[in-house]
Parts: sequence; structure tokens; C-alpha cells
Amino acid sequence: MTRIDDLPLRDELRGMSPYGAPQLDVPVRLNTNENPFPVPEALVRLIADRVSDAARTLNRYPDRDAVVLRTQLAGYLTRTTGYQVGPHQVWAANGSNEIIQQLLQAFGGPGRTAIGFDPSYSMHSLISRGTGTGWISGPRNEHFGIDREAAVAAIHEHRPEVVFVCSPNNPTGTAVEAETVLALYEAAQAARPERGALVVVDEAYAEFSHRPSLLPLIEGRPTLVLTRTMSKAFGAAGLRLGYLAADPAVVEAVLLVRLPYHLSAVTQATAHAALEFADTLLGYVDELKAERDRLVTELREIGCEVTESDANFVQFGRFEDPKDVWRRLLDHGVLVRDNGVPGRLRVSCGTREENDTFLDAVRAVMKEISE
Amino acid sequence: MTRIDDLPLRDELRGMSPYGAPQLDVPVRLNTNENPFPVPEALVRLIADRVSDAARTLNRYPDRDAVVLRTQLAGYLTRTTGYQVGPHQVWAANGSNEIIQQLLQAFGGPGRTAIGFDPSYSMHSLISRGTGTGWISGPRNEHFGIDREAAVAAIHEHRPEVVFVCSPNNPTGTAVEAETVLALYEAAQAARPERGALVVVDEAYAEFSHRPSLLPLIEGRPTLVLTRTMSKAFGAAGLRLGYLAADPAVVEAVLLVRLPYHLSAVTQATAHAALEFADTLLGYVDELKAERDRLVTELREIGCEVTESDANFVQFGRFEDPKDVWRRLLDHGVLVRDNGVPGRLRVSCGTREENDTFLDAVRAVMKEISE
Repeated sequence: MTRIDDLPLRDELRGMSPYGAPQLDVPVRLNTNENPFPVPEALVRLIADRVSDAARTLNRYPDRDAVVLRTQLAGYLTRTTGYQVGPHQVWAANGSNEIIQQLLQAFGGPGRTAIGFDPSYSMHSLISRGTGTGWISGPRNEHFGIDREAAVAAIHEHRPEVVFVCSPNNPTGTAVEAETVLALYEAAQAARPERGALVVVDEAYAEFSHRPSLLPLIEGRPTLVLTRTMSKAFGAAGLRLGYLAADPAVVEAVLLVRLPYHLSAVTQATAHAALEFADTLLGYVDELKAERDRLVTELREIGCEVTESDANFVQFGRFEDPKDVWRRLLDHGVLVRDNGVPGRLRVSCGTREENDTFLDAVRAVMKEISE
Repeated sequence: MTRIDDLPLRDELRGMSPYGAPQLDVPVRLNTNENPFPVPEALVRLIADRVSDAARTLNRYPDRDAVVLRTQLAGYLTRTTGYQVGPHQVWAANGSNEIIQQLLQAFGGPGRTAIGFDPSYSMHSLISRGTGTGWISGPRNEHFGIDREAAVAAIHEHRPEVVFVCSPNNPTGTAVEAETVLALYEAAQAARPERGALVVVDEAYAEFSHRPSLLPLIEGRPTLVLTRTMSKAFGAAGLRLGYLAADPAVVEAVLLVRLPYHLSAVTQATAHAALEFADTLLGYVDELKAERDRLVTELREIGCEVTESDANFVQFGRFEDPKDVWRRLLDHGVLVRDNGVPGRLRVSCGTREENDTFLDAVRAVMKEISE
């Protein structure tokens, strides 16, 4: 049998493991920030109709530039943020991971570096490495916020070509203030005066935030890019639809590196349908925000240390042995996530019933480990 | 307005244009090797059913490793080639382009080189460049075949980490003999004795060939990878489903670089349905093979020089000014492809009626340009 190490694999990949949370069959799965509400049956029917239409011409390549979809996404952003964007400012791909990969292929890559402020979404660093972009792990403060001065200093020191700011931040739930993003943007441009640096604001969880979107910051800032996803607020993790909004020149740049026809006709058709149901789906978001706030309150009542959350998940602790707590919660039928943040675990916001089960499990585990 | 050159774009992308054939609205489109037969209505209904099932859990991430789909694809390969492969030897992605990108991320990349034998599928070189892999354009003979000695010599000279062999070759239609692939494989391993080199046999058009698949060559050759697509034989270009078959260690290697959850639940569900209709769809392939052979014969009768074709397209010429002939055919309502091969154009095999329209147009254009 051939072992992977016998192959002419790139050296930096040797000894690595594939990325991904365990996909376990557990009664209550609160580990990957999925939306707990199934797609409503009326939307299932609309998806079936739209996909049937797309299937009738499946022998043809899909719309390579996804123009209809980008127009719909631009309309959604405009409607929900009050900031007007057009289709030429929007680009879509198979999940925000592919968006990030395309941005790094165009603006990162060998001989360039990207910075993020850890703990944050681990795919920023993984995709940086996957595209040959050097990775710098910038600092966060003890409340998991971005310390403006320390972050600006890190940018001045390392002069990265790409800066990642995740807001609300995964896995901590922490939102970033507009002033901080602006300070990082200005620092990044000042550090690279010739052509500037790309600042990517990852708003995967924006719809769950107490604060308004950072979208209007792209105005007059050609290297500020906002990324979004339909995985969370639209309850469509299975759809794999991520998108960005930025200056049209950024979209033109991404077109140079995107694989042609990267977005299948069935993905585009399904996304069309989901976008038409945006109002219904955002209703679930309101429910989840209320549940998220309840999780924060009740976890604190139980005695946990809880990080403020603007997302559809909550970081809680502080545990001496989070791996042990993770396993004990699993024994109670609840799967949460250990993101490697010292002393903390992350729980995705489920339905009211799922959250009750989770809270009961935490109470039981707290009792177990205090005995 | 910001211009793309004002951005901190990578230097090697400056001045480039996005890849892609013109998507023009023309009565007879024979330019992208699409299958002209629409998906049968019974399959459209099955797709709608399967996608509806998938949509009901669209709030959940898809099966990250696409195990069911890979099992089906392995079954299809085994059934149609007589060579047994299992799901652990198969990997699937959004089009064979993404498969190629993943292979290059794992086995190519900065400091490494790939070779292909041009003219061939231009995405091999484009994705090599996109992943920072050096590109070497190897030779073909005057009949657009691979000259075994010259190709082996090029491999010995350049010692590439990745070798691309497209069979049947796009855009020429030329099949490659198993003995040639074996000679290239042995040369590539000999040139890099430590851990060998990857040889990627791109069989996107295999189902249209007069010859058996090269799949059995993977036996005992851990760095020989076969790639396929559902775009052509399955008439599902809109689905964007490419796959590979190789040693399980190659699949493990690709898992290290694939974006997690790269393949949407709707794409997986649609592919499941199409694979169940494989026998019906392969019936269309037989029709297309007969039409392809007719195109070769009739183009020769018209006086064209035609390259032998094992694919669902035909390379024809020889024209002093292929761009002019391309434009004239377009004026007659027929869109073919100018792949930049000197003196040649490529026509995809359409329905009988489309091919008749194309042949009439060629006759008319030949008359025009001889006047």
C-alpha cells in the first residue's frame, strides 16, 4: 500500500491532517454554526421548480459570470444595509472559502503575506498557506477584541499585502468597531504606499449582529473587501454560496483567477430561490438572535465566563480542561466545538429546544466536574 | 474610478484577460464541446426530487467527503471500463478544473514545474500558473499526436513534478496510446527518482473514444491519476462535476488542500440522479460518436484537412486566416472555436440538424473564401 509520504507531495503538507470538524451523528449538533431551522417547505418547492428549469439546459455550461445571481445579491445587500451596491461590485463563489482563495490568488501568494487577529476563522490562515501566502498571526486583547494600537503596530511591522478582519469574529463572537477597521485600513495603506494592501472584512455572521454592517466602509476605499455567505443567515450551509462586495476593480481582478464556470447552474438556481425567500429567512435570524442572547444570559447564570456575541454562536468557559468538557457534553448528546481557544468552547445557537438540552447538559457537566 | 492596475494585484496577473470562450447567443453553438442533447424529462424530474430532499436539510453542511457520490462514480467507472475501483480511489470536485487545481496545490506549486504537450487543454497551463507552478510546453508531432521520444526527452530535460496527458486531446481530438502514457510515466519517475512525479491523464472525453479507457494503467502506479468529468458524456456541463481515480494515497493528499465542504448538497444530489441515468445518457454518446465520424467524413469530402478525432469535437482546417473563417461561420449562425491552433478551428459535435447546418455553412464559407 502506498503511503501519502511516498508521494511527491509538497513538503509543507507533509504530516498535516485534513481540515474539518468531526461530522458525528448526535442528537443535538451545535458545532458548526449551522442554522437550526430547516428550509421552509414553500422554499423547497421553489428550489425544485428553479432547479428543474436549470436541469432542462444542464447540457450547457452555466452563466460563467453569474450575472443574475450577483444582481440579486447586490439587491439584498442594498435592501438590508441601506448602502447601494450594484452587480459589478459583487462576486459569488462556492462558499466564502472559495472567495477567500480567489482573493489570495489575486492579491496574496508566494512572496506576499497576510495577517489576521487570532483566534479567528482558521480558514483565513489555512487558505493563505494553501495559496503560498505567508501568514502572520496578529494579537487580540483578553476580551477577544482587536486592540487597535497593537493591531496597527503589527501592520506597520509586517507590512502585509492582505489583512483579514472577521466581524463578528469566529469563534469568539466579537464584533469589530468601524473605527478599528478604518484604522487598520489606513495603517495597511500607509505601510504599502505604492499600491496599498487589501483589507478583507469577513462578515459571515453580519446578519446576527447588534451593529450595522460594515459594508458602507467600501465607499471610496478600493482595497476594502467585504465577504458574506448564505450559509448562516439564509440557513443554506449545504448550498455553499459565498460572495463579496467591493470596488468593481476587485471583481475584475478576481475574474483573472477564478476557475471558469466555477458556480454550477443548480447552485445558482437554488441561490436565486433562497434570495427570493430572504424576508422569511431573516425572520428566523431574529429568533436566533433572541436565543443567542438567552444563551449568553443563562450560561452566565450557570457560572460560565461568556464572551459577548454578535454571531449565531457563543464562546463560553473558562474550563481547566475544555477537551474533557467537550467529551462530557457529547456524552449528554450535545456536540459543541473545541476551536483550540485556551479554556473555551463554542456552541452554535440551536432551536429553543436544542438550546435547553445544551444548557441542561452544561449544568450537569458543571456539576460533574466540580465533584 | 479605480483601475485594476491601481490595485495591489500580483505582478504576473497584470495585463491578463479572464479565460473563457465568448458566450454568444447564436442559433447553432458548437464552440464549447457541450453535449447537444438536453437532459431527458424523466431525469429532470428525478433531479427535482433529489434536490428537494437535499434542500430539506440545506441548513446543514453537505457531506464533506461526498462518500455516496464517490461510491457511485467508482461504480460507474468499474462498470464501463471493467477495471475495479472503489470509493477511496475516487475524488470529486466542482468540475475537472477544480480537480486539476487541487492536484497542483498538493503536487505542484512554487518551485515546481508541470509539463503538457501543446496544443492541449489550455486550463492545464492556466491553472499551473494560477497555483504558482512553472509551466513547460512540450511538443506534439505534425498530426497532433505525442511523439514518444520527443516527449520522453522533454521530461528528462525538465524533470517536471507534474505531467499532463490529455487523451482524447482537447482541442485536437487525438487519442494517446497506452504505451505512450506508460513511457511518459516511466520517464517522469526516472527523472525524479526520490519520490517520483505525478502523471495526470485527462480523460474528459474518454466516453467518446474508439479506444478503451486508460484507467487500468493506475494499477500499481501510485502517481498516475486519471481525471474525468460529467460535463460531456453525461450532458451535464451546467453541473460542474469533475472527478479523479487514482491510488487512495493521492485522494488523501488532495484532502489536505481541498476547501472544506467544496461540493454543495445540490450539486451532489443532482450528480446522484444523473449517475442513475448513466445508461440513457450513454445512449446519446453512441449517437454523438456516429455524428462525429460523419463530421470527419463530410468535412474531408468538402476538402478540409481534418484531424482524427476520438472526442465529441473535430479539429478542421487548414485555413490561411482561421479568424476570418470563424467570423464567416458566425455570420451563417454557427459558433465554433478558435483555439489558436495555426490554420485550424474546432467544432463541437451537435445534433444531426446542427451538424447539417454547420456543414452547409462550411460549404458556403469555403465557396466565399475561394472566390
